[in-house]
Parts: sequence; C-alpha cells; structure tokens
Amino acid sequence: MTDKKTVLVISAHAADFVWRCGGAIALHQKLGYEVTVACLSFGERGESAKLWKEGKTLDEVKSIRRKEAENAAKALNVHDIQCFDLGDYPLVVDLDAKMRLVDLVRAVQPNFMLSHSKYDPYNTDHMYTSALALDVRMIAQAWGHNPGEKVLGAPQLYLFEPHQTEQMGWKPDVFLDITEVWDQKRAAIECMEGQHHLWDYYTNVAENRANQFRRNSGGQSGGRAAKYAEGFQSVFPRTVDEL
Amino acid sequence: MTDKKTVLVISAHAADFVWRCGGAIALHQKLGYEVTVACLSFGERGESAKLWKEGKTLDEVKSIRRKEAENAAKALNVHDIQCFDLGDYPLVVDLDAKMRLVDLVRAVQPNFMLSHSKYDPYNTDHMYTSALALDVRMIAQAWGHNPGEKVLGAPQLYLFEPHQTEQMGWKPDVFLDITEVWDQKRAAIECMEGQHHLWDYYTNVAENRANQFRRNSGGQSGGRAAKYAEGFQSVFPRTVDEL
Amino acid sequence: MTDKKTVLVISAHAADFVWRCGGAIALHQKLGYEVTVACLSFGERGESAKLWKEGKTLDEVKSIRRKEAENAAKALNVHDIQCFDLGDYPLVVDLDAKMRLVDLVRAVQPNFMLSHSKYDPYNTDHMYTSALALDVRMIAQAWGHNPGEKVLGAPQLYLFEPHQTEQMGWKPDVFLDITEVWDQKRAAIECMEGQHHLWDYYTNVAENRANQFRRNSGGQSGGRAAKYAEGFQSVFPRTVDEL
Amino acid sequence: MTDKKTVLVISAHAADFVWRCGGAIALHQKLGYEVTVACLSFGERGESAKLWKEGKTLDEVKSIRRKEAENAAKALNVHDIQCFDLGDYPLVVDLDAKMRLVDLVRAVQPNFMLSHSKYDPYNTDHMYTSALALDVRMIAQAWGHNPGEKVLGAPQLYLFEPHQTEQMGWKPDVFLDITEVWDQKRAAIECMEGQHHLWDYYTNVAENRANQFRRNSGGQSGGRAAKYAEGFQSVFPRTVDEL
Amino acid sequence: MTDKKTVLVISAHAADFVWRCGGAIALHQKLGYEVTVACLSFGERGESAKLWKEGKTLDEVKSIRRKEAENAAKALNVHDIQCFDLGDYPLVVDLDAKMRLVDLVRAVQPNFMLSHSKYDPYNTDHMYTSALALDVRMIAQAWGHNPGEKVLGAPQLYLFEPHQTEQMGWKPDVFLDITEVWDQKRAAIECMEGQHHLWDYYTNVAENRANQFRRNSGGQSGGRAAKYAEGFQSVFPRTVDEL
Amino acid sequence: MTDKKTVLVISAHAADFVWRCGGAIALHQKLGYEVTVACLSFGERGESAKLWKEGKTLDEVKSIRRKEAENAAKALNVHDIQCFDLGDYPLVVDLDAKMRLVDLVRAVQPNFMLSHSKYDPYNTDHMYTSALALDVRMIAQAWGHNPGEKVLGAPQLYLFEPHQTEQMGWKPDVFLDITEVWDQKRAAIECMEGQHHLWDYYTNVAENRANQFRRNSGGQSGGRAAKYAEGFQSVFPRTVDEL
Repeated sequence: MTDKKTVLVISAHAADFVWRCGGAIALHQKLGYEVTVACLSFGERGESAKLWKEGKTLDEVKSIRRKEAENAAKALNVHDIQCFDLGDYPLVVDLDAKMRLVDLVRAVQPNFMLSHSKYDPYNTDHMYTSALALDVRMIAQAWGHNPGEKVLGAPQLYLFEPHQTEQMGWKPDVFLDITEVWDQKRAAIECMEGQHHLWDYYTNVAENRANQFRRNSGGQSGGRAAKYAEGFQSVFPRTVDEL
Repeated sequence: MTDKKTVLVISAHAADFVWRCGGAIALHQKLGYEVTVACLSFGERGESAKLWKEGKTLDEVKSIRRKEAENAAKALNVHDIQCFDLGDYPLVVDLDAKMRLVDLVRAVQPNFMLSHSKYDPYNTDHMYTSALALDVRMIAQAWGHNPGEKVLGAPQLYLFEPHQTEQMGWKPDVFLDITEVWDQKRAAIECMEGQHHLWDYYTNVAENRANQFRRNSGGQSGGRAAKYAEGFQSVFPRTVDEL
Repeated sequence: MTDKKTVLVISAHAADFVWRCGGAIALHQKLGYEVTVACLSFGERGESAKLWKEGKTLDEVKSIRRKEAENAAKALNVHDIQCFDLGDYPLVVDLDAKMRLVDLVRAVQPNFMLSHSKYDPYNTDHMYTSALALDVRMIAQAWGHNPGEKVLGAPQLYLFEPHQTEQMGWKPDVFLDITEVWDQKRAAIECMEGQHHLWDYYTNVAENRANQFRRNSGGQSGGRAAKYAEGFQSVFPRTVDEL
Repeated sequence: MTDKKTVLVISAHAADFVWRCGGAIALHQKLGYEVTVACLSFGERGESAKLWKEGKTLDEVKSIRRKEAENAAKALNVHDIQCFDLGDYPLVVDLDAKMRLVDLVRAVQPNFMLSHSKYDPYNTDHMYTSALALDVRMIAQAWGHNPGEKVLGAPQLYLFEPHQTEQMGWKPDVFLDITEVWDQKRAAIECMEGQHHLWDYYTNVAENRANQFRRNSGGQSGGRAAKYAEGFQSVFPRTVDEL
Repeated sequence: MTDKKTVLVISAHAADFVWRCGGAIALHQKLGYEVTVACLSFGERGESAKLWKEGKTLDEVKSIRRKEAENAAKALNVHDIQCFDLGDYPLVVDLDAKMRLVDLVRAVQPNFMLSHSKYDPYNTDHMYTSALALDVRMIAQAWGHNPGEKVLGAPQLYLFEPHQTEQMGWKPDVFLDITEVWDQKRAAIECMEGQHHLWDYYTNVAENRANQFRRNSGGQSGGRAAKYAEGFQSVFPRTVDEL
Repeated sequence: MTDKKTVLVISAHAADFVWRCGGAIALHQKLGYEVTVACLSFGERGESAKLWKEGKTLDEVKSIRRKEAENAAKALNVHDIQCFDLGDYPLVVDLDAKMRLVDLVRAVQPNFMLSHSKYDPYNTDHMYTSALALDVRMIAQAWGHNPGEKVLGAPQLYLFEPHQTEQMGWKPDVFLDITEVWDQKRAAIECMEGQHHLWDYYTNVAENRANQFRRNSGGQSGGRAAKYAEGFQSVFPRTVDEL
C-alpha cells in the first residue's frame, strides 16, 4: 500500500473519466496523489457509433476503445487504470463484479472518490454506477468484510459533471481550477477519436466553469483568473476546522 | 479597515447567533478573525415569553435582552455587535434599514457571512432575514453602489442551524469542530436566562453534530474525536485548488 | 371567548373557502366547532368575469360577490364570516391589515387553520395569502404582542386544495370524509352563480378524493365507503400518543 | 390470527429497530398492540466493528448480535422477533426472501408498518429495505397472491428516524410521546454493547424530539410536557373524520 | 417497417394503457399513427380482485384479463398489442425480457413513447416499469446493440397519469384534447369489467383535465372548449423552431 | 393593436434580454412576431463595473447602458423597447410601477412571455422580476382590471437561461434552434461593451445548447444539425392536439 494520498474514479464507460474529471485526475497526480481509474465497460456498444458505422466487430470496438482509454489515461498521467469489461447498454453488475470493485476500493484506500450523477434518464448505466459507488463504499467500510484488511474510512464521493446537467438534477458545489493541467486534459480528450462532437463541447464546459470559478472566488472584486475549471457535487458533508 | 479576516453574522433576534453559530464565532475569533454580529431585533416580542409573564414593559424587555445579547457576545469574544432594533414578530426591514445593513457589509468586508435557513414556517422573521442577507450581499457587490467604497467580493453565505432542521429543508454540508471553544459557547448560552428550555437542546445538538463529524471524518477507521460541533449549509459553490 | 373548539379559514377571495374546504367547514360545525372565515377580498376583479361582461360596476360586483359569499357561508353553517375588503388582483396586505388579521387569530384562538397552497404561479394572491397565514400565526404566538391577550398555541395549518394541484406542488397528506355534509357543500357551491364552470369541477374533485379515501383506508380489503372527500396538506408535524 | 391490533417493523440490521423506533414498539405493546419485528440481518459485517476488532468469527458475531437483538426485543416487550439472516453489507434480498417477508406481512396483518428512510447514501442496505417494504406491502395487497389468505388492507408505512436525518431527506410529520416507556427504550439501547457511541446519541435525539413535541403541541401556550419522543415520516395520506 | 409515424406504450398491467392514455392512443391512430401497446403483465394477481373473489383460477384470470385488454385495444383501434406475460405483484423483468422489449422498441421505432410515473409507493410495478422504459430506450439507441438494425433516435417519453398524482410527484406539462375520441376511450374503459370503481374516476379525471386544458389555452379569454383531456409529463426537453 | 403575433420580454437589467433570449427575439421577429422588451432598469449600479471604474457618473452610466441596450435591440430587430428606469441593486418595484407593466402586458397581448429564473441567490433582482412577471400576468387576466380593455389570455411564461443554471434550480424543457439568427445575437452581444467577459461565455452556451438540441432531436440517428441554440423552462403546461 502506498504512503501517498490516493483517488479512485469509477467510470461507467471508457471515456467518462476523461470528459468529466480529466482535469481533476491530472491535477491530483501533479499534487502527488495516485489516481486509479476503474472503467466498468469500454462503452463499446453505446458510445462507439463511429466504429460501428465503419463495420467493426465487437472485439475490434472493445480493443480500439480500450486503447483510447489507455492513451487518455497516459495523457492524464493516471497511476492505474482497471478495465472491468462488464459490458454496456446495459451495464450489468452482478454481486461478483461488485465485490471485485470492493476489493479495489480496499486496495486503493482512496482519500476521495469520483463517479456519476445520481440521476440520468438518458443513460441509466451512469446512474446505476453512481448507486454502485455508494454500495461499494459502504461494503468497504464494514469491519466484517474480509476481516484483517484495512477498513475504508469515509472518503468524499464527488459526482462529476454529466452531459446536460440540469436534466440530471446535478448541482455543483465545488469548482476546481484545472488551468495548469488543461493541456493534458485536452490531449486526453483528443484520444477519443470516435467522439469528435464532444471535444469542443467539453472545452466550452471547462471555459464556462472557469468563468463561474472567477465569479465565486470574488468576481470583479478579487476573483481568481482561472481559465479552465471543473465542477463537482459532493454527496457527503465536509468536516473542517475553519469555515 | 482591518487587515484581519472578518466574518459577518446576520441574526434576526438577539439570541440566534448564540444557539446557531456561537461556536463558529468563538473559534474564528480564536483563529484571528474579527467577527461582527448584526442583531436585527432583540427578539423582544416573540422570544422573551418569560419576561412578559413577569409583567415587564417593552422597554424593559428590550433592555434585558440587549444586555443578554451583549453578555453572550462577550463570552464569545465577538469583535463588534450592532443592534438594529427593527422590531420583531414581525421583523420589518424597510429600504432604509436594508441600506444600513449594506453599509455594514461594506464596512466589514466579510470573508464569509452567516445567517438563517432559507425556509422557516414557524418563524418567518428567520426566512425573511435569510432573503435579506442575499439582497445586501448583492447590493454590496455593485460597483455603482456608493462608488468609491471598496466593493464586496463573493463571500460564502453559510446558513446556520435552525430549530427543527427537517421542517426547514435545511441540510448541512459542512461540520465545524468547536470542541476547543465549547466552554465559551455554553457560557454564552447561559446568558440567555429566559430561554432555559433551549440550553440542553443546543448542547444535545452540539454533541450529536460531533458524532456526525466523527462519522464523516472517517468513523471507526480514522474519524477525528470531536466532542462538539456545529453544522452549516453553504449557499454558494466553493472554489478550490485541490479536492 | 367560546368554550368550543374553533377553526379559522383564511381565504384570499370570496369563493375560495367554498371550493376548497366547504366540506371541512360544514363538518366541523356539525362536530361542534365554531368556524370563522376571513375573506381577504371579494375576488371582485379577478374572479367575477361574468359580472364584468354584464357591465356591472366595481361596487355592484363587490356587493354581489359579498352576498354570494354570505349565502355560501350560511349554507355551510359558518359561525362567522369577516370580509377584509383588501382588494384583489393584486391582493395588497399592508402592515395594518396584517395586524387586523392577527387580532382575529387571537380572538378566535383556532384549534387549526386553513389556507392556500404554498405556491401558485396562476394566482399569486393565493400564495401570498399562504405566506401571510404563517406570518400572522407567528405574531399571534408572541407573548409580547399585545401583552395580556391570550397567546396562540400551535394550531396546525392545513393547506386546502388548489386548482391544478400538481402545478402548485401541493400534496395532500390527509383526506377528510365529507359525505354527510356533501349536500351542504354542493348548496354552497351553487351560491357562486358566476362560476358555473367550477361546479362540476369541484364535484368531480370530491368524488375522486373519496375514491382515494377508500383506497387509503383499506381499498378492497376494509376501505371505508366514503362518497365525497376533501384533501389537505399539513404544514406542521402532528403530536400523538399512538401511531 | 390475533384479535389485537398489530404492528410490523422491518429492520435492515439487528439494532435498527431499537434506536429508531424502540419507543414506538414499547408504547404500542403497552397500548395492547402485538408488535412483530423482522430483522433482515444481524448487522454482522457492517455494524459490529467492536466484535471484529476483538477477533470474533462470523458465526460468533452473528450469535452475539442475535442475542443482543433478542435481549433488546425483550426489554421492549416485543411480541415476536423474526431473524431472516439474509446477510448485510450488502443485504441481498432475492425473490424467495421477499416472498417470505410477504408471508409474514400476511400473517401479521399490521395496522401499520415501520421501516427505513427512502434515501441513505451512507447505508444502502437501509434504503433498499425501505423500497422492499413498499414491494411486500403491494404484494400482500394482491387478491391473486396466495388466494384464500386474508388480503392486506392499506396500513400506513412510517419511516423511522435515520442517522443524520438531513442527509437522507427524511422529514418527520408526526412526533410520538414515548416518555412513559423511555426506561424500556434506554434498557434496550444498553443491550447493544458494541455500539456504545450511539447510546447517548439516541438519548439526545429522544430529548430533542420531545422539545419539538412540546413546541408543536402548543409551546409555551399549552404544549404538553413530553420528556422523550420519536419522530416518523408517513408515506401515505391519512384518512380521517375530523381534522 | 411502416412509413407511418408510430407510438409505443409500455403498460405494466393489462388495463393501465386504457385509464392513463386511452385517449392519446385513439387520437393518434386517428391522426395516422400506428400505436403499439406492450402489456408486461395481465394485472392478474394485483388488479383483478373481483375475479379472485369469484373463485377463478390463475389461468382463468389471465385469460379473462387478456380478453378485456384485447377488447379495449380494439375499442381504441390499437395497431398492435403485445402481451409479455411476465407476471405481476411483483412484476419481474429479467435481462431476457428486457431484451425482448428492446427488440420491440427497435421494430416499432416510435416517434414517442408512453409509460408510468417515475415514483409510485402504492404500486412498485409501475415505477419499475418507468425505469425499464428508460433502460430499453437507451439500449435501443446503442449502435453496437444488434448492429445492422435501425438505431433508435430520441423519442420523447411521456409519463401518463397515475392514480393519486400528487403522491407520485407526477406533474403534467402537456394536456391533450381527446374530446373527439372520448367515446372510444369510455368504451375501452367499459371493457374493464372487474374495475367498475374506476370507470367514473377516470371520467372525472378526463373532464377535469379538460377544464385545465381550457384554462391553459386561454381561459375565459380565448380558451378552447375541450370537454375531455389527458395530461402527460415529459421526461426530455423538446426541440423546436418556434416557441 | 397589431394583428401580428407578439412576444413580451421582461428583463431586470439592460443586458439580460441579450444574453438570455437574444436568439429567440431575433428569430420570432423573423417569423413575423412583434417582440417588445421591457427593461426594468439599466443595470446601472450592478452590471456596469467597467464604467464605474472609469469614473463615470450615475447619469452617464445610465445613458451609456441605455444606448447599448437600444443598439442591441436594433441588432435583434426588436419591435419596441421600453425602459422603466426603476433602479437596480436593488430593483424596487412599487405598486405604481407594477401597474405600468400591467398596462404594457395589456397593450402587447403577448402570445408568450419571457423572463428570469424563479430562484437566483446571486442576483435577487432577477428572482423578484420572475415573481413580478407572474403578478402582472395575473392582473392582466382579471376582467375587473380596467374593464373594457382586452383581457389577457393565458400566454406561456418561459424562463430564460440564468448564469450558473444549476445554482438557480433552472431546468430547460425546450431548446430553440437559433442558428439562422446567430449573427444577430452575436452582434447584439457585442453591443455590451462593458461586459466583455460574458461574450464568449454566452457563445459557448449557445454552442453547447445546440449540441443538446442535436441530442434531443435524435442524436446520431436523425438529430438535426443545429449550431446555436437557446434553452427555456416553461412555467405552465402546454395544450396540444397531438403529442
């Protein structure tokens, strides 16, 4: 087990961790954290339209998407990426897969976790993954689960930004300045060759979240000049010594 | 204007700042902040039943309640307490009073503000005060309001704990460890001689919020041993460099 | 002051108390309560289209609407009806009018109160009246308001059924069987000669709420055979000795 | 089948029924109800940290926790306690187990049911149990489920108090005075030897809920002097003959 | 595959499509759409009390309910009705059944879909069906699901009216005038011989929704004289060229 | 009175109508509507930081902002712009000003209205304007308000996009394709010389709403290739003849 601080990202499909928290990943690696990404599927069926239009087979699609995810992970300097290969649309997580994910949580001992929004009528894989994140966090906290292993504390679960935030009832309560790692995030985004239509979308998102960062850090009277930012919604309350 | 960090508490009635954020006040004074408390009324009509039962006059009640509030402020080491004397039940805030409060916000330039929950069907003075806090924050941010004065940045507004939290739709997202200043908070509480029935109530609250602090900081696997805590709900998102 | 149990209805316009809680009024009168209705306006401008189309003057409209309200009150066996004549569309309640209403609350000392839904984008008179009901309840509870008068306890505030319930976010948590007073309610409804289009509407409502009464009292396995019912949303929690 | 009124409690883990509705249980037994408690698991993995730290085996933990639950049930004078032993963290309820629970609902024919809050991000066992309670209630109401058995009516489902109420979106709408059975509840609480940190927590809760009972039953103007209370959230509307 | 516009209704039990969207079905058939109804179960256990009281067997009940559903479908001029016969109370949808439903969605290629409200504490079959509708919509949109088949676009999912709308948190955002097909809907309703208690209920609903149609289309100043209407809640935003 | 269809925009500050619905304005003008914009203030105090930093006087600021608004209106081909000059930060709308706005609603007889989001903790001028829009709509619908005037029907009220949508609880339910008028909107945006920091922000918004337009109109399977779009939240249900 590492002495470093750690982060665990639980991503339903191969590319989710890139669009939604690529900046947070790169930044925390830079800050000395070790970030592990769990990709539950490759998004092979539901998020690879371009490849299917080209007539690729399932194995080819999965292989290409895996490669893209690994390249993106590299661009973000991810410490470890774990592909669970559970299938997508629908993502089916049986008890066995759930317990493998608990094992990973126990192994990583994350200081905080990142996953999907609580609700997503467009993409139920996302919302079931968010529920799953709560399940595995709870199991990893149980002293009677694999007694002898280090028990999980109470890491925050941050819900990263979904597509069409308002439709998901997602409300960010924290903005993270990712200006200094933006080039890495953009590079990771560009690894997703089949989803060109989202490159500029998430660049616009990053710019606009930076506007909101500036506004919430003081606006024209002291706000900080962030150029790119990401937003997150916390599930649990924080515990502090100073407000 | 001070070089110190500052806090502004907007309290509808004389005692609200004691029950609801007395710990935060004492703690931040200890941390070097200067905390200013604005009491919009003395709670003379609505929160002084004991005195009225004793047959006191309005002036007597106000004078006694002012004294209690000042004593409590002293116990908490409050930097400055400002009594607006606007009357209560109902609290009536006209445009003039609102502007006096804006002047105070401008003068204090708070790093963060504290006020009431957004909704309170038991006590509409509370919820109108919460709305007022947003109004004055906005006006103080306007470059065209008293041009030349220092314009307000974007201080967080924390909503402190109401009585019967669930009925108010209040949900804390941050717990503050007030163990080291608990004695001061209890002393301030005991200045409120007419509201004996609330002394133990808010002591119980502080103990139970500490339990929740322990749970959210790691529980049995690394949680911190807070004995007393306070909870707050943030209105605005935070801006950070690390999650 | 009466020894009987009492009820206070706060109705924005002349007819609201009929459609929305006429059954509750007649039933509680029958049960020995004394029910007082406060009509803040006659609904003269906004709910008297038929009379305006006929070319009536404002005074005529008010006089006719007052008569209708009084007739309806009689049909329901209302103990007392108080017309505040504050004007409608918009209903303007200044501090003076608010205090007159507090006086009435103090005089009636209601065991429970009835008023409008919390939200109503179609009819803001309604939602401001609901907020007003909370204000006056609070003031009437203050020991320092007109010291010497009997202080109000903690009567429940029931929000009666608005038109288009779902748009108002109104959710009933109690259904009242009004079968035995239905004829009175229908008679009161028929006093509202200018609003014929609502007679059958609220008859349908009463029938369907009875269906829901049957369902919630046991359905096909023990449900009670109510034929007409009304629904209400409670603002405050109940206090009981048995669940 | 009994002629007495009955209650069914559905408790995810062994101790939940004690902290969350021990008072309601003891009180209703005293009132002549027969209360049955269904414990879906012993909380062996997730809520027995102390025993695991002592090096106990799974069987030992379960046996000790079962004993504690039975002792607590005795202290509360529970009519019947049924341990389903389905495992916890995660609690897995397959169709077979669900049908066993339906059988119990049919056998008990509860006048009302008690279970967990609808949402619980800390403890998903709890929220799945709440969903399960709705499932089994529905199935037990079906005339075609085991035709010939007595069909369930429409018992209220009360959601008892979770830990950290605000985080669960739980809002009590009824407070029950448990003063006269408090000694029994405290005795039952003290049967839970491994969870000492919660004894005072739930004692504080009971005291503060009593304060809210007093407030909502009239406050300083007629409120009843409850010393201990419990709060509950109703899922379904009530059906009444008087408001 | 048809050139016509198409609709897919996903109905948990045999009769749901009649009460809740029978008017929409008949109207869109008249407008030239082809409407397919998927009945996941016959409502044999949970919604056939009358037949069970008469001593019918399961097979008899299913056969009678199927007949009623087919008759109702005929009355509404339904293009196609597909009975999945998955059982009810509880409705159990395994992966295989889900995929059969996806096949149907792919075959129908609906311009819009209709299903149940998101939440239903009385009838969890309903709410699981609503979640299922989102699942199958998502899967049918995946280019990698049965590559070569026509991929689904982005049909609106309308949630039709549940019983006790307010308890379900259901809020209609569109009213459809069904006056010209009302006779067909009433005829279909009367096919449901075992649920007589709902005939007038849903007739009242249709009349009152028409009142709301009139109100929202202009009221006394230009509103359209609809006599019967149905309400629906949209899950997804609309895309338009004119507001 | 015009025979054309009409629109009324109620904008708290001078520039709001540009950022938030400039596309809708230009597009509906092109479609033959006459669009009237009511600017309640010039945003002189709160949204003109740049001018104040340059040392302009209040009159100068107002004059410059008026000019900008008029230029923007020209770029959008606005039919009529009405400046109410009520002051901002805070915007104070007395009964007289409210009635002047009612007069305008009556004169315009809008087919639909556009205004601010229901909630805005950053800018309470916005949320009070939204409440005001409901008030004036209601008054304009009253047959007894200025009898003889044409009474308002039931125009939809669309809430246009606020800054930081998620913090406002704003959820768009309709996306409008503004591609063909984008150049006009951008030109209008560039009239706002003091708010350069928002030019790209709202360009990004328009691009991303277009992405959502494409997704909701069919995505990769039939979605329409909008390049710029705006989102709106409807307050009232629609009434239709076809879903």
